[in-house]
Parts: sequence; C-alpha cells; structure tokens
Amino acid sequence: MGDDRRVSNAVRERFDAALRDFIGPATAEMRAIGADLGPVADAASEFVLDGGKRLRPSFCFWGALAAGGEDSEALVHAAASLELLQACALIHDDLIDNSDTRRGRPAVHQRFADLHRRSDWSGAPADFGAAAAILIGDLLLAWSDTMLANSGLHDGALRRTRPISSAMRTEVMVGQYLDVLEQARGETTVDRALRVARLKSAKYTVERPLHLGAAIAKAGDDITQAYSKYGIPLGEAFQLRDDLLGVFGEPATTGKPAGDDLREGKQTVLIALTLSRGSLSDREFLRGVLGQADLSTDDVERARGVITASGAAAEVEEMIATRLDEALAALNEVGLERGAQRELVLLAGAASYRHE
Amino acid sequence: MGDDRRVSNAVRERFDAALRDFIGPATAEMRAIGADLGPVADAASEFVLDGGKRLRPSFCFWGALAAGGEDSEALVHAAASLELLQACALIHDDLIDNSDTRRGRPAVHQRFADLHRRSDWSGAPADFGAAAAILIGDLLLAWSDTMLANSGLHDGALRRTRPISSAMRTEVMVGQYLDVLEQARGETTVDRALRVARLKSAKYTVERPLHLGAAIAKAGDDITQAYSKYGIPLGEAFQLRDDLLGVFGEPATTGKPAGDDLREGKQTVLIALTLSRGSLSDREFLRGVLGQADLSTDDVERARGVITASGAAAEVEEMIATRLDEALAALNEVGLERGAQRELVLLAGAASYRHE
Repeated sequence: MGDDRRVSNAVRERFDAALRDFIGPATAEMRAIGADLGPVADAASEFVLDGGKRLRPSFCFWGALAAGGEDSEALVHAAASLELLQACALIHDDLIDNSDTRRGRPAVHQRFADLHRRSDWSGAPADFGAAAAILIGDLLLAWSDTMLANSGLHDGALRRTRPISSAMRTEVMVGQYLDVLEQARGETTVDRALRVARLKSAKYTVERPLHLGAAIAKAGDDITQAYSKYGIPLGEAFQLRDDLLGVFGEPATTGKPAGDDLREGKQTVLIALTLSRGSLSDREFLRGVLGQADLSTDDVERARGVITASGAAAEVEEMIATRLDEALAALNEVGLERGAQRELVLLAGAASYRHE
Repeated sequence: MGDDRRVSNAVRERFDAALRDFIGPATAEMRAIGADLGPVADAASEFVLDGGKRLRPSFCFWGALAAGGEDSEALVHAAASLELLQACALIHDDLIDNSDTRRGRPAVHQRFADLHRRSDWSGAPADFGAAAAILIGDLLLAWSDTMLANSGLHDGALRRTRPISSAMRTEVMVGQYLDVLEQARGETTVDRALRVARLKSAKYTVERPLHLGAAIAKAGDDITQAYSKYGIPLGEAFQLRDDLLGVFGEPATTGKPAGDDLREGKQTVLIALTLSRGSLSDREFLRGVLGQADLSTDDVERARGVITASGAAAEVEEMIATRLDEALAALNEVGLERGAQRELVLLAGAASYRHE
C-alpha cells in the first residue's frame, strides 16, 4: 500500500508538472497583452494548480497503461488536459449553483466580485464577478482542447481521441443542464437523479477518461467494453459519495460549508430516497429546508438526522458498495497489465470512499 | 457586382449546409438522451442556423483561396466551424451584457427564463435562463472544436490551424473580459477602446480567420503578413461601424433595440470621442444616460444629437474610411489569386458599410 501510494503520488506530480508547463506560457501570453489581465491569469492558474484530486487524468493515464499503452510525457499531458475541462465545469457550476466557496476559498465569481468591490468600479460587483467567471471558464474550456492537441500525441492517437473527447464535453454540459433542470422541477425520483449522475459523473468522470486512455493505447473493443462496465458503476458510486459528502461532509476536508447540498436544494439520489422513505413530518421538514440559502447549523443537524433515520444514508452506502463490487469484478473479465490494473483498483476505492 | 453577389451567396449557402450537417446529428444525439433536452437542442440549432452574416467563415474561406488554396468541402466545414465559436461568444455576451434580444428574437437566457416561467418551475426564472445560456454556450464552444477536427482537413492542415485557432479563442475571451472591465471602470479613452476593438474584433473577426485560411492553404509568410495588414484595420473599421450601429442603427435591420449600446453603457471609441469633444452640458447629459436600462426614445434621440453635434460620429466615419483604404491597399502588396482577392475587397466593403 505504501508503495502504491508512492506510484500514484509520483503520477499526480507529473500531471501537475504538465499543467504548469501549459498554464505558465498561456498565462504569460495573457499578461503580455496588458497588466489588467493579471487577475485573470492568476485566477486561471491558481484554480488549476492549487488543488483537485486529478481523478480524470488518473483514469485516463492508468486506463492507457492497463490496456498495454506506453508511459510517455505525451500521455501525461493528454491526460492532464482533462483538468482544464474540469476547471471550466467547476467554475461555471459554482456560478450556476451560486456556491461561494471552492476548496475552502472564494469561488471565481466571488473573487472577481471582490476585485470589483475593492476597486470601487461602477455597476454591480456580482455582475462583474459572473462575467469574469463565464469568460475564465470559456478560456479554460478552449485551453483544454489546445493542451490535448499540443500534448505531443502523434496524429493517429490524436485522431482516435477526438470522438471521445467530443462526446465527453457534450455529456458534461448536458448533464449539468439536466441537473439544473431537476432542481427547477423540484422533487425528483431516484431514477431521474441516477440519470443525471450517469451523465454528469459516471460517463464524464470515469468512463470517458478511461476510453480516452484506451484510444491512446489503441486498445481493442473488449477492453473498451470492460472499461464501461467498470466505469459506469464506479462513476455512480463516485456521485453517490458526493451526495453523502454534500450533506454529511466536514468543511475542513470538503472545502465547502457543511450541508451545502441542502442549501442549494440539490435533488440527489440521497434526497429522493429520503423523500420516498421518511415519516410524513420528516419529509415535510426536509422539503422546507431544501434550497434555503440561510440554513442554520441546527437545521443542517436536524436534516442529517432525518436523512439517517429514513434509512436513506445507509441505502446509499449500500448502493456504493454494490457498485464498487461490480466495477472491480469488471476489471477481472479482460486481460489488463497487472500493475496498472492494481492502480485502477486503488482508484476505485479512492473514488468511492473519499472524504473530499 | 451581380455576379459577385452570386458567388458570395453560393458560398454562404455552403457554410449553412455544412453547419446543418454538423448540428443535425449533434442535436439528434442530445435528443436521444432525453426529451427534456429538446429545448437545448432547438436553441443551439436555431441560434446557429437562423442568422448571422457568416463573416468569419467568409474571411477564412476566401483567405485560403486568395492564398492559392483549393476549394473543398473540408475547407468549407473548417471555415463554418468558426460560427459555433461565435455563437458561444454571442450567447455568453448577451448574458453578460444583459441584452434581451438578438436578431430580433429573445436572447438564449431570455428564452430559457421564459421556459421556466411557462413551466411554473421553482427558483428564479432568470437564474435558470442564465444557467442554460452558460451551458449552451459551453456546448457550442466545444462543438466548434469538434467541427474543425472533423472537417475533413488532413492531419497536416489541421496541425497548422491549431496555434491559430487556439490564439483566436484566447483573444476573443480576453477581449470580452477587457470590454467588461472598461464598462466597470467607467469612462474610457479612445486608445483603450481601440485596444479592446483590436482584440475583440480586429484579430478575432478578421485577422485570425484569414490566418486560418492561409494556414490551411499553406501560405507563405508574405501572405500571412499582408493578411494582418488588411485584417487589423478592417477589423477596427468593423468594430467602429458596430459602435455607430449600436447608437444610430435601425432596430428593423440590427435586430437590437434603438440605442442599445447607450442602455448598456458601452465604452466605445464613439463615446470616448464624444466625451472628449462635446460641450460641457452635452457631456454631462451623455454621462447621465449611459448605462440607464430604462432610457426613453427621447433620450436616445437627444443622445444621438449630442454625439453628432460633437463631431464624434463624423470622426468615426472618417476613421472607418481611412482604415478601409489601408486594408484594401495591403491586398495589393502581395500576389493573391485574383478572383478570391476581389471577394476580399467586397467583404471589406460589406464589413465596413453594413446596416446590421
């Protein structure tokens, strides 16, 4: 286990180095246009370099190696480019959800609203913050493509990645839209919440990065299919864990306020289960607090109690465990490179049983 | 002239056909995910197919042909992909500027706010509209890349387009940010307004599309340089015309309310000139109306009078004429294919003296 950790950490450092390689010159070019772009360059660069679990690059990298692909700096750069897409998704998501913090710091739209306030500019600080967050997200989305194209992968490999990278971008945007739509519609069902989880997390976070790795390694259909059978349940488990952390997570590790999902009124599987299981009074209480921006600590505590008492929290834990088993079994159905396969097993555990 | 019109129209129809080729299957895939994605598919597809001057694809296409490149469907598809990037820029821009109409119809964020209102969903209609506009813009930005990659250009040509397409995306986002920053800072100078025009319009709308065409045609440095000498002044002329249309344009042709730039408080070259030239009382009046969302028709009329009386409108017309001359002269400094060169001359006229 100690050795395995070292392997994953060493790879994560290579992703970070690749991101620095890209972001350094890209933001330097921006600063050269004008000093007033400094805050944009800083925000983009800090967001990408100062955090993140590097899960999507890891699935891509180990997916390539497990399929017999060669370890190369080109692969590391291609895998790391997924973090720029993810940065766009998070920055836009925080704005859409009106989340003020990310990784314990002000979200990008807040950061620029603050800049506006400090600079005593005209107009509404929140509007300026929103504009900056939209444009910085766009920039990072465009850069993710540039970083993949400039990764050093040869033309053939690059061509194989294109349909996957394209599907992945569509799926994450569509998944986010359906997520917003579920909040707008109000009470969701377990099935509908799982559909969002499948698009927004399962395909985007796990399956597509693995397929990208498989495409780079020119893997056969058997491996691509095994990656779907591993990736989809694991990605669902990842999202279900996210649902639990959104209610029960500790601010010190999640970097988000306690009970943030409740404040945002997120229609998760966890909430859908509680609302289909809980007692009448518990359901009424939960419906009343969902989406209340000014939820008190006591309300969060009581909501946690309601969710636990309904059996929903335990059932979600059970769903995670079942999906993790299913994911791990799929890895044994096909011939994979042993060392990389072990990394995929560890990644599955880390994605399903994380605290942040 | 009749013949030339036919040529340009025929090419525009080929851009439209290429866009339909791409958008049809892309939105069909989305609809297959779920019926609730219908409004997203409709909005994306109508925005791209129902309008637009196709200026950027035209500069790219004729830039390639003037440089001796071959006419091909791959070139048409690559050129048309610029419209998807432009669709993202406009959808996000309308949201940022809080513009409610585009081409005489509700802007995308308004369209989804209306859907929310009609559906009687929970939460604020404007928030839902903003979320949808952000995500649909993201989708189109990602698709512009997919459409270019799938255009049918061979790997070598595609590789040559990458640094240009990448710079172009950065420039338009950075240009939009600086534009927003100028509005926030309040009164701008002619120099600062011209810097924004150079990034947001000159490079993005004219120079980069030409360079993209030149790269596809594998043109030499002399042509690339001539395209900059033609593209930058022409792009500035294009933006200066936009400034005039934003104040003096007719809603029936611009698709925007009369005096929209005044309501939005745009810090344009036209406004900067007026504020540096006009009489004290005129300047005070103009400062007072800039950025007033509820500007009356009378106020718009009076502001137009002030801008004309200051001499700023005539000076901007003069700046446009000078820049157009400069642009056209650059085309004669290098050997270009004659027929395509004539199209570039016509395009220059159309970009500088348009009514919409």
